[in-house]
Amino acid sequence: MWLQRLGRVLGHGHGHGHGQGQCRRHLSARIVQGTSIVVQPESESEGREAMTFPGVWLRDNCRCTECFHGSSRSRRLDWDSFDTRVRPVGVRTDQAAGQQQQQQLHVRWSDAHESSYPLDWLRQRSFDGRRQRAYLDEFYRPATRHWAGAEFQRIARHFDYGQVMAEDAALQQWLQALAVYGVALLRDAPLDGGVVRRLAERVGFIRRTTYGEEFVVQAKPGAQNFAYLSLPLPLHTDLPYYEYKPSVNILHCVTQTASPGGSNLLVDAFHIADRLRGERPADFERLCRVPVDWNDIGSEDGREFHNIWRAPVICLDAEGKYTRINHSVPQRDSHFSVPLAEVEPWYESYGRFVRLARDDAHAFKTRPGDVLTFNNIRLLHGRTGYDDTEHNSRYIVGAYLDWDIVYSRLRVLKKRSAAVQ
Amino acid sequence: MWLQRLGRVLGHGHGHGHGQGQCRRHLSARIVQGTSIVVQPESESEGREAMTFPGVWLRDNCRCTECFHGSSRSRRLDWDSFDTRVRPVGVRTDQAAGQQQQQQLHVRWSDAHESSYPLDWLRQRSFDGRRQRAYLDEFYRPATRHWAGAEFQRIARHFDYGQVMAEDAALQQWLQALAVYGVALLRDAPLDGGVVRRLAERVGFIRRTTYGEEFVVQAKPGAQNFAYLSLPLPLHTDLPYYEYKPSVNILHCVTQTASPGGSNLLVDAFHIADRLRGERPADFERLCRVPVDWNDIGSEDGREFHNIWRAPVICLDAEGKYTRINHSVPQRDSHFSVPLAEVEPWYESYGRFVRLARDDAHAFKTRPGDVLTFNNIRLLHGRTGYDDTEHNSRYIVGAYLDWDIVYSRLRVLKKRSAAVQ
Repeated sequence: MWLQRLGRVLGHGHGHGHGQGQCRRHLSARIVQGTSIVVQPESESEGREAMTFPGVWLRDNCRCTECFHGSSRSRRLDWDSFDTRVRPVGVRTDQAAGQQQQQQLHVRWSDAHESSYPLDWLRQRSFDGRRQRAYLDEFYRPATRHWAGAEFQRIARHFDYGQVMAEDAALQQWLQALAVYGVALLRDAPLDGGVVRRLAERVGFIRRTTYGEEFVVQAKPGAQNFAYLSLPLPLHTDLPYYEYKPSVNILHCVTQTASPGGSNLLVDAFHIADRLRGERPADFERLCRVPVDWNDIGSEDGREFHNIWRAPVICLDAEGKYTRINHSVPQRDSHFSVPLAEVEPWYESYGRFVRLARDDAHAFKTRPGDVLTFNNIRLLHGRTGYDDTEHNSRYIVGAYLDWDIVYSRLRVLKKRSAAVQ
Repeated sequence: MWLQRLGRVLGHGHGHGHGQGQCRRHLSARIVQGTSIVVQPESESEGREAMTFPGVWLRDNCRCTECFHGSSRSRRLDWDSFDTRVRPVGVRTDQAAGQQQQQQLHVRWSDAHESSYPLDWLRQRSFDGRRQRAYLDEFYRPATRHWAGAEFQRIARHFDYGQVMAEDAALQQWLQALAVYGVALLRDAPLDGGVVRRLAERVGFIRRTTYGEEFVVQAKPGAQNFAYLSLPLPLHTDLPYYEYKPSVNILHCVTQTASPGGSNLLVDAFHIADRLRGERPADFERLCRVPVDWNDIGSEDGREFHNIWRAPVICLDAEGKYTRINHSVPQRDSHFSVPLAEVEPWYESYGRFVRLARDDAHAFKTRPGDVLTFNNIRLLHGRTGYDDTEHNSRYIVGAYLDWDIVYSRLRVLKKRSAAVQ
């Protein structure tokens, strides 16, 4: 079902190419208001709605070899001389030569150029709001589903590490679950230190940070980073002090402590933000608006660093969608660069956020061979304290991936699987 | 002068520790409105203004070993049980034991805890708006100065590659110029392919992308990327199709073409945005608001990618400051996921942006041994076309750095040089 929907989004499966008998469409086109072109497919199957395309957009996206460079899939139209007042002066439609089912729109322009557009190409780029929403929610970036801690067992997806490494379908399912729910667990990975690198390279490549590429989480006396202690680690996001915060956390459990502690804590902070938005709008507004200084000062491999990034706890885009959650008690700077009058109300609001998150946390303990993967832009994670002794240790290898790279891989997999359906 | 100002921002140079005779300050403190503390330094030198600190902020930032973990420089206060309604119940001031000049504030709290704060530490974190602005503009991220193409020769700073590699002061000056003007040129680098890596590692580490770590820009027949042609390369920013767009472009000129072309073009797009904001507010508003699909589809080392990021041409933060410019004719997607009514007006506004940028471009040709460094979040760059033949080639090695890493290095250098002034 999902593939069928994606197929439609990508322009496959409109009753052509699946048998000659189904294809009795006729395509018509006309210029409206001197600047736009209305394309009207006629077909016994779905997809008959008229589509309006602004002339300037069509001209800008001419597919001829003069305007578009095929091997780099890039526009080569000369925008230094492009006239945005260009107008269509003639339109016609026909079948593409040699392609019985492929209908085309042909346009003559006021700049004496001529362009041709396949119907499927046009349909994929329709300005219809529902089609655009489907493209964005299914292909650009999967729409997220938020969850309360009590729902964790229901939403958590498990995958076999070996299958993910070997089969593209399993890889796609894992990355899709990670995108939608923000968390997914791989099981039965080998216990060597190279697992996180191999997994990251199955997707793309590791996102390096101040702390290197892979990192090891285990108790270290005199640690310079709070995570490297056996103390309880309160709920937080990693590296809030980066403008370009690493996106996906990969934590491979190699050795787990036998002590009662060492459990992972996870919270979907998008769910906590949803709750505040509904129940405490003034707190929500404040946590979305007041910038907080996040910082990390120390040294790694003998090199000092002083990272700072200023951003609210809840970051929104222009549409009001969550783009990022920042939260870390240890990495919140003592510098707080806001007007005095903002301070006390912000602390009240932040206190509510912290308590809501704490009360919603789901605890579970990974076993050796588990690889916990989660969205560091969205989820809070933490760890209960544990006893670390010579015969009772905990050894986790971690690395980060960036969403840019994960989504790219997911798009490539989706296009491939939609094409072969 | 600059160091002196930074010294003040960082809390040095307030007339103490520079000779006993200058230090006759007396510190007083009082609780106001039951929740805040007013600290009043008295001194013959500057810095006498009273400072108000919210009690909850002071309690949250207690420096004792129970609340603050020294070796990781992290707050360890237990926020799961922290009460944001905590109140100061008593205050006093004195000299720190054994530190004749270091005055301290001591506070007793309603939760029975006691805290101490050095005066310098407090002054560095004053909620005074001017002090906060100075901290943000000098230490957090240097304030930018925007320039027109005609001003290029006046603002462009040149540094000696060898000095930057060997001396911290030169390194700091280069990074400061890059932060303020968005461009700086290093000269007399060796002509081997390892220069960009050594330079990046002098700062931190290379930011990897879909195209690897270092990349080579030279004419390649049948290239999958538009930059790898000898055609004119119109003004653009690199990788607008990444959410986490690489920040700083390092381009090392190893071989330069003898043909008339192959010049670099540079534009400060923050200046172009300033002009639109003043002269064409409707265009400015549209280019800040309408999201554009940027994309890159192809393969590298046999692995396919499909990168997309949706963002306006001009991206603003909540204060209206520029956070990022996106512009690339080749990498603008034919998908344009906006309502139909937005399309034509957006093209008009974008056309104005492109023409303003083109008319403002400064052209210059790097020589072998030059390393051009510029802010890819802010500047547009391009290249004039050139003739590429066996005996007339152009060979540029490039890499990216991220601002997170550059600013971190710059802060470490500034703290060090301010401390030794």
